[in-house]
Amino acid sequence: MNDKSVKVAVVGASGYTGQELLRLLLMHPCVDLTAVTSRQEAGRKLTDLFPRFRGAKGTESLAFMAPDIDAIVESGATVAFLALPHGVASEFAVPLLERGLRVIDLSADFRLRSAAVYEEFYGAPHPAPELLEQAVYGLPEFYEEEIKSASLVASPGCYPTSILTPLVPLLMAGLIDPESITVSSLSGVSGAGKKADTTLLFAEVNESLRAYGAPKHRHLSEIEQELSIAAEREVKVSFVPHLMPVKAGIATTIFCNYLPSSETVSEEVGNTLQTAYDSRPFVRILGEGNFADTKNVTGTNFVDIGWVVDTRTNRLILSSAEDNLGKGAASQGIQSFNLMNSLPETCGLLNF
Amino acid sequence: MNDKSVKVAVVGASGYTGQELLRLLLMHPCVDLTAVTSRQEAGRKLTDLFPRFRGAKGTESLAFMAPDIDAIVESGATVAFLALPHGVASEFAVPLLERGLRVIDLSADFRLRSAAVYEEFYGAPHPAPELLEQAVYGLPEFYEEEIKSASLVASPGCYPTSILTPLVPLLMAGLIDPESITVSSLSGVSGAGKKADTTLLFAEVNESLRAYGAPKHRHLSEIEQELSIAAEREVKVSFVPHLMPVKAGIATTIFCNYLPSSETVSEEVGNTLQTAYDSRPFVRILGEGNFADTKNVTGTNFVDIGWVVDTRTNRLILSSAEDNLGKGAASQGIQSFNLMNSLPETCGLLNF
Amino acid sequence: MNDKSVKVAVVGASGYTGQELLRLLLMHPCVDLTAVTSRQEAGRKLTDLFPRFRGAKGTESLAFMAPDIDAIVESGATVAFLALPHGVASEFAVPLLERGLRVIDLSADFRLRSAAVYEEFYGAPHPAPELLEQAVYGLPEFYEEEIKSASLVASPGCYPTSILTPLVPLLMAGLIDPESITVSSLSGVSGAGKKADTTLLFAEVNESLRAYGAPKHRHLSEIEQELSIAAEREVKVSFVPHLMPVKAGIATTIFCNYLPSSETVSEEVGNTLQTAYDSRPFVRILGEGNFADTKNVTGTNFVDIGWVVDTRTNRLILSSAEDNLGKGAASQGIQSFNLMNSLPETCGLLNF
Amino acid sequence: MNDKSVKVAVVGASGYTGQELLRLLLMHPCVDLTAVTSRQEAGRKLTDLFPRFRGAKGTESLAFMAPDIDAIVESGATVAFLALPHGVASEFAVPLLERGLRVIDLSADFRLRSAAVYEEFYGAPHPAPELLEQAVYGLPEFYEEEIKSASLVASPGCYPTSILTPLVPLLMAGLIDPESITVSSLSGVSGAGKKADTTLLFAEVNESLRAYGAPKHRHLSEIEQELSIAAEREVKVSFVPHLMPVKAGIATTIFCNYLPSSETVSEEVGNTLQTAYDSRPFVRILGEGNFADTKNVTGTNFVDIGWVVDTRTNRLILSSAEDNLGKGAASQGIQSFNLMNSLPETCGLLNF
Repeated sequence: MNDKSVKVAVVGASGYTGQELLRLLLMHPCVDLTAVTSRQEAGRKLTDLFPRFRGAKGTESLAFMAPDIDAIVESGATVAFLALPHGVASEFAVPLLERGLRVIDLSADFRLRSAAVYEEFYGAPHPAPELLEQAVYGLPEFYEEEIKSASLVASPGCYPTSILTPLVPLLMAGLIDPESITVSSLSGVSGAGKKADTTLLFAEVNESLRAYGAPKHRHLSEIEQELSIAAEREVKVSFVPHLMPVKAGIATTIFCNYLPSSETVSEEVGNTLQTAYDSRPFVRILGEGNFADTKNVTGTNFVDIGWVVDTRTNRLILSSAEDNLGKGAASQGIQSFNLMNSLPETCGLLNF
Repeated sequence: MNDKSVKVAVVGASGYTGQELLRLLLMHPCVDLTAVTSRQEAGRKLTDLFPRFRGAKGTESLAFMAPDIDAIVESGATVAFLALPHGVASEFAVPLLERGLRVIDLSADFRLRSAAVYEEFYGAPHPAPELLEQAVYGLPEFYEEEIKSASLVASPGCYPTSILTPLVPLLMAGLIDPESITVSSLSGVSGAGKKADTTLLFAEVNESLRAYGAPKHRHLSEIEQELSIAAEREVKVSFVPHLMPVKAGIATTIFCNYLPSSETVSEEVGNTLQTAYDSRPFVRILGEGNFADTKNVTGTNFVDIGWVVDTRTNRLILSSAEDNLGKGAASQGIQSFNLMNSLPETCGLLNF
Repeated sequence: MNDKSVKVAVVGASGYTGQELLRLLLMHPCVDLTAVTSRQEAGRKLTDLFPRFRGAKGTESLAFMAPDIDAIVESGATVAFLALPHGVASEFAVPLLERGLRVIDLSADFRLRSAAVYEEFYGAPHPAPELLEQAVYGLPEFYEEEIKSASLVASPGCYPTSILTPLVPLLMAGLIDPESITVSSLSGVSGAGKKADTTLLFAEVNESLRAYGAPKHRHLSEIEQELSIAAEREVKVSFVPHLMPVKAGIATTIFCNYLPSSETVSEEVGNTLQTAYDSRPFVRILGEGNFADTKNVTGTNFVDIGWVVDTRTNRLILSSAEDNLGKGAASQGIQSFNLMNSLPETCGLLNF
Repeated sequence: MNDKSVKVAVVGASGYTGQELLRLLLMHPCVDLTAVTSRQEAGRKLTDLFPRFRGAKGTESLAFMAPDIDAIVESGATVAFLALPHGVASEFAVPLLERGLRVIDLSADFRLRSAAVYEEFYGAPHPAPELLEQAVYGLPEFYEEEIKSASLVASPGCYPTSILTPLVPLLMAGLIDPESITVSSLSGVSGAGKKADTTLLFAEVNESLRAYGAPKHRHLSEIEQELSIAAEREVKVSFVPHLMPVKAGIATTIFCNYLPSSETVSEEVGNTLQTAYDSRPFVRILGEGNFADTKNVTGTNFVDIGWVVDTRTNRLILSSAEDNLGKGAASQGIQSFNLMNSLPETCGLLNF
């Protein structure tokens, strides 16, 4: 541990997002893991559940503990990552914030500005509406300053990140028709969580491709919230997620009508995206005619963006790829963590 | 062999489509394989290249022969399947037709009614434009009668079948806006052929998902031709194919604006599709709220169709699945073969 | 249904073996499925759980029923397949046999001749030891005559079939040292059953290979029983099963010391295997220098066998492949069914 | 770059081993990549071939150059990694050594102490026998001191590393019978290289498992060389490699007769392995009853070892796992590099 080390707790660390958080935090040069909780694995050594981590600094003495607020506070952690189901996360966020910790929540609990929209999409009243105003949507590419000083960061969902990064700058620049957007996304199986569910068995998923969740997947709520902010008007999109036979990775393909002339649209799109992300280390612009491939981003915090212009139909086709557990979850949370702690944004995240 | 057996040649049988044709023809109760050609495998026993077929009736004596017109004719074949690259197929179609064989061509050579569109999409003048008028587009669900008496059947491409089956009846019924169609399709790797190409290696494709070929994939030409016929006006669509890490299977997701009221659209869509395919054994209507899964159609001649209505955006989302080597190629060709030879349409094709 | 149709019940049809049994029985020309049971799916349409079977003859009216003996008997079934866990199977076998049905049990309950060995390997007293004497081990290649007249067939385990087919003839011929046998087998994930177990999730299995169950996997008991019969002395082997990232398939590699001279051993092995399996339609001898590949046997009832001679170490290396759900379970059970009902051994099983 | 940075060239960097070398060297804190060669990619930007590396330090200006000795020397490199085919590697090793560079060769050219054995297994006279004496076998767990001062390190093959690490200490301790060893190994497809070979296509490898190369795979030569040194007598083993459907990873299962009593063998094996690897950071002893899983080592330099004792047959069964591109190739080479340059052995290699 060095002088800048921040004491960190991971609450709910036995699932796939928790595992990826642990992987990255164990290698992070400025992190001191003080508490790792899991209700069902309490008492078990970290490396018993995750043999992959044997040999990482500090793992010999790390064991899962029950998710107890007092114990987390006593561990000395000043930042807590919550990798919990929605609804459960706020049960921990509220007391941890009260005890003075800063919270990076990877659940959906604090992503929406409106408790009513939360209830519409999640089917239950919001568990802690009083916190919605102070929560910051943890997409550092758009909310860097707010994240730096935030107490409560609501890290975005996996699909939204892959959809918002290509679309937000284009909507802000007025280059596309907000009413024309259709989105097809594909996610690796880890996106569904480490659930004892027969539909996620290898023998069900391999050599299979299937859509699900349309037309009103829960992530639509935050996608449309952020697109509407960018467009300065209400935006509704059609969104179809699919389950694909890979462990990790999201590929997104977006269709939308472009507004500039066919002659200039590609250049305008390119300039807008380049300008928007010029100083952002984790967005890679592949350029026109290139499509993003999930295999180039797995295990990383990058999101890759490419596009083609379909002049026959006046449509722009955008392609993006990210790791659903990376830029879609764990590493994006750590990107916020870095900003919150005045560390370099890329600290511990430049993996290839 | 029984009395109804038809003598059949397969020209170009060493690729994936050829292999699937052989698999199905070897099990077909009314087929007598008399000639199996492959330029590069000439002289080799069939079961040396395809050990899977050891034990199938007749394979002991079957060997690949060079693709010689005289030899094919002398084998006694009355029907020839062509599983050849576009451009090459017509070199065989022309003389085989002249010698009195009926030809089922699985290449793109005779799918388009217009030689000009062929040249636009395939980048070369059409090799045999004089045959375009007599060629029948081999989608039995729409061209059954023409196929029955055809000499030359142009079996559809893999993507088009998965896109046309859901869309054609809806366009004919005027239920959707022809200008609003966007299509995202995913294909298994066998769709790219058995090519010594490093981009298709297992180590490149596994844990990878990538778009390609947009915005002007060659299959667009036949997709738009048939959609335009159905809509009785010119239809252009945006189409993005993707390569997914499965051996076989195509999943297609289609977005389009519906024209009926939100209250009745799902019922109208359901009735229209049910009516269109009521007597068609290979189209399975899954109903509203269901998505097609490629694993339910691999190795079969089925295409499955489901849909959801997105009333928030006035869009209909259609989902279809087929085997790119099955209903997308080989078994669809055999379906035409059955019709051409007055056999039951399902003969040899009811595999599960 | 034709005149020769046999009325068949499948008890425990919702798992992977049950699903494969249904797939094959639905296509079998001489089978009339009268009862399909599943405790957890009772009342549900067959095609709701298995959409793949939509369109198969008779499926429209088939629904899962609760596993009730009276109802099975009343369905008119004369043969019952049991695809149940060990221990549970005998609860059904006993009353069904009493009611006059013939039973093909795919569990381990009746594979062992000794109740003591059962208890040693399965950790519980044998549930119906009085039936052990009448049960026939359902490997048609070795017990054809006994199967034809059997009331109770104990269909072999998946691993044993892949190990016994290459070894039994060689032990009978005295070509290998019975004390020298080591076996490494790999199974697809369906072999572990359709269990809601997180260790079988796609995200745990893909890009993973792991051994398990050694040194005393339950299948060892029947492997050693049958090898000892063949060798006419007690044979013990070392056996390591592995889980591999495929849906279905078993690949087995066997090491053993050969007894003939290095000059003649390969010919003697080849002659012995050829002679043993000359008239057996489902064992394919690939010959020396060839290794069996699971992809050539998936979905079929074949077992492929190849070998090499390692003269540097005086060892014979045998390689076999089968489908764990096919020759390792469902289709092998149907092979016995055919024999029991005086049908051609290959009836309904010549799939490629 | 920091003060300790070593200037490094990678010769033959476009294949899978080269790609993994680049990935690790780009993240290595004490490496300055000065030359990256590829005959077929010369002139192309590094990130054009490998988009995954976009954003890594220094990649913006890196391009492949033709493999020219003068250019490599002029780049200032003091160490060259050779990721070339056997036979070709020595063409570069000889002049680079003459020009004063230290060479880490990942090919087979300098792994064998005997030019005669090389010719027996590789089918051609050794291309530079005069260098065999000075070459050091680059398994740091056994040859640490020799590696530190070596000019020419011959990094081991992928299979040998997974076989030697568990066996060498046990043979040295006299715990197992050297004549009893049989080995079954499985490799991911990247082990076959980035070759335009249809047998390595996704559609050929997925849902497939097949042995190959037995009984005399080339790696046997170095396996037996090192086992014989450990046992202080000639050791011959039977070895069967298999191709499995994963991108990367090797799983090895070893059978051998143990010499201690059944009561003490497991403890003696455990103590021997623990002692041998106590201070070695990259060998992880999983303990008795545990099997190594490739998914825990992919992308890392670890080799995991577990075992079970089969008292029924007096055999010890060893299980190991590594990444064929990691501890089996690229990262193991970097481990040697660290030792050669007085860097911490784990520098740049503690990835999880």
